[in-house]
Amino acid sequence: MPDRFYADVKSLGDFVSEVLLKLGVPEKDGRITADVLILSDRRGIESHGVARLKRYVEGIKSGMIKPGTEINIIKETPVSMVVDGQGGLGQVVSFLTMNRLIEKARDSYMAFASIRNSNHYGIAGYYSIMAVQRDMIGISMTNAAPLVIPTHGKTAVFGTNPIAVGVPSNKETAFMLDMATSTVPRGKLEVYGRQGKEMPVTWATDHEGIATRDPGEVLKNLLERKGGGLLPLGGCDEDTGGHKGFGLGMVVEILCSVLSGGSFGLDVYREKGKPSGVCHFLGVINPEAFAGTQSIKENTARFIDMCHNSPKARGKDYIYYPGEKEYKYSVRYKDHVPLDNAVFKALEGISSEFGVEMFRYGPFNEGKE
Amino acid sequence: MPDRFYADVKSLGDFVSEVLLKLGVPEKDGRITADVLILSDRRGIESHGVARLKRYVEGIKSGMIKPGTEINIIKETPVSMVVDGQGGLGQVVSFLTMNRLIEKARDSYMAFASIRNSNHYGIAGYYSIMAVQRDMIGISMTNAAPLVIPTHGKTAVFGTNPIAVGVPSNKETAFMLDMATSTVPRGKLEVYGRQGKEMPVTWATDHEGIATRDPGEVLKNLLERKGGGLLPLGGCDEDTGGHKGFGLGMVVEILCSVLSGGSFGLDVYREKGKPSGVCHFLGVINPEAFAGTQSIKENTARFIDMCHNSPKARGKDYIYYPGEKEYKYSVRYKDHVPLDNAVFKALEGISSEFGVEMFRYGPFNEGKE
Repeated sequence: MPDRFYADVKSLGDFVSEVLLKLGVPEKDGRITADVLILSDRRGIESHGVARLKRYVEGIKSGMIKPGTEINIIKETPVSMVVDGQGGLGQVVSFLTMNRLIEKARDSYMAFASIRNSNHYGIAGYYSIMAVQRDMIGISMTNAAPLVIPTHGKTAVFGTNPIAVGVPSNKETAFMLDMATSTVPRGKLEVYGRQGKEMPVTWATDHEGIATRDPGEVLKNLLERKGGGLLPLGGCDEDTGGHKGFGLGMVVEILCSVLSGGSFGLDVYREKGKPSGVCHFLGVINPEAFAGTQSIKENTARFIDMCHNSPKARGKDYIYYPGEKEYKYSVRYKDHVPLDNAVFKALEGISSEFGVEMFRYGPFNEGKE
Repeated sequence: MPDRFYADVKSLGDFVSEVLLKLGVPEKDGRITADVLILSDRRGIESHGVARLKRYVEGIKSGMIKPGTEINIIKETPVSMVVDGQGGLGQVVSFLTMNRLIEKARDSYMAFASIRNSNHYGIAGYYSIMAVQRDMIGISMTNAAPLVIPTHGKTAVFGTNPIAVGVPSNKETAFMLDMATSTVPRGKLEVYGRQGKEMPVTWATDHEGIATRDPGEVLKNLLERKGGGLLPLGGCDEDTGGHKGFGLGMVVEILCSVLSGGSFGLDVYREKGKPSGVCHFLGVINPEAFAGTQSIKENTARFIDMCHNSPKARGKDYIYYPGEKEYKYSVRYKDHVPLDNAVFKALEGISSEFGVEMFRYGPFNEGKE
């Protein structure tokens, strides 16, 4: 059996939405979810791609995720919304909300939504990209399962709480920052664990809150809730700026869950099989409110070039700007995405469990593309 | 001569605004500037306090800063403003703009301003605090002189570009994050240099873009524009998340200068004695747009407590949340602030240069307070 496969993008999308349909997810919602997952694979972020389908399937089966999602607006002004996700798929409520925010920003120049009672919504950047494609600035954040410890703490209190900001530009690639506010997400520890590599000291701590280089220990402690966890961007100490990552993670948590009246910190994913309580924050800014669309696209490109073209450090030959790598992957993986052996097998299992025909695939050959 | 002095807060405010008056700054503008500088000293951030007065004096004398500042609104919608600072004092244009944003957010639920052609505005947090004092969420960012290098670069392209976010809470202290998006500001290297200490490797690079522990080398290279500079939050490498700090710094730059149509990156402080071109971004969110003021104040406090009261790492006995340390200083330094010997001497020099009587002061005695 090959180590890596490729999957045909169109066929994989059909597969994902058909599986979800079998679980009671309306077809249009399944299509949205499939699109978010597959764009993640296309952008080279395999941890948030179809690898997640199994968890969504389990989530729906256990009752944590409700298959039908209606966008329930609790409160609305010309520039804001509080939305209740009603325990549905995070992708669906976020996609519908983002579309509505884009409409609102056409008339009102900007609009923000805080969404409670949702579920995992995939890559934060997806929703920012939706805005950028309409020449608007897109903002997207989410809280998540508590995996990150406060500076000077030793137990995980909040999630990897990512921030995504997309800005349209005249370059082929938009400016597209999509970052966890922890130094790294959990998936990175899993990769290092599999490769038997030591972590940098700014990634995670042992059960006593002391920085460690052993990824296996951290993952085990997190699973058994023995203490320790991921470190905020900047690491363990104030000296290296760890309190800044901590503060940014708190900002994301407040915008997502305090503003929506939802669950925060330790109350997210509190009980297995119960609603996760995940919350999101989405925003759209119409450049016409400020210097204007053309000026902003032009100057964003100029500023990107100023950074991108600046002299390189010894031993380095390229300065990537936010979103550039992911965009390049998305071009390369336009029609087919790579799948790990383990992910492929899980999808095969889902295929036979639900009697849904496998998508088109083949052995992955990097050279072939 | 003692090493440290204290200055009476009220008398120091009179002194600063009188000096500025002699330079042609209208009294009300001098009062605003004095208040921003002195709050910084009161919050324990001496680098941005009255220690800066000398630079402002020089700036006005050289023509870089214009003494009169009128708020010139280039473009306005119910939720946004583009403001031209006309080369005046950053504090004055930011204070006036923030007050107007707070008014706008009362009616329109939120309002953001991008300000071009301004000057150094002191601590970013001052303007966020203005919003928090009216039970609103306050956002403040600024670009700055290019001191920070892009990930894999070796020359400074943009500034320490701070982000300040204040959220009202039912705790005595508001949530008040105020952070440079570089690991540390330049002032921190100066402190380490004076103390002969080695820096952590995530702070700065040598002239070739390689991480260094020698603060003196970096400061010298920056001064002589020989290359190298401060590192974005997360340090040199993508492994430790340096590209995230880089991305955040770029977001701040875009919001401040691209949205306002102002100067960015290398064009800030391009020529000595010429307008600096510093740009700011300010925002106010009315909690009534979301879960409501009382709910947000209560849940922000609950979330702060969740972090603050979580178990401590081995060897640590306290988890500070953003703004807590600074607030404690501001209570301690309510009526008098400490001044370094060097700062005190510089102020004495200004006193005799402009014939303005010195403020009330005495030898600083930590125990006395």
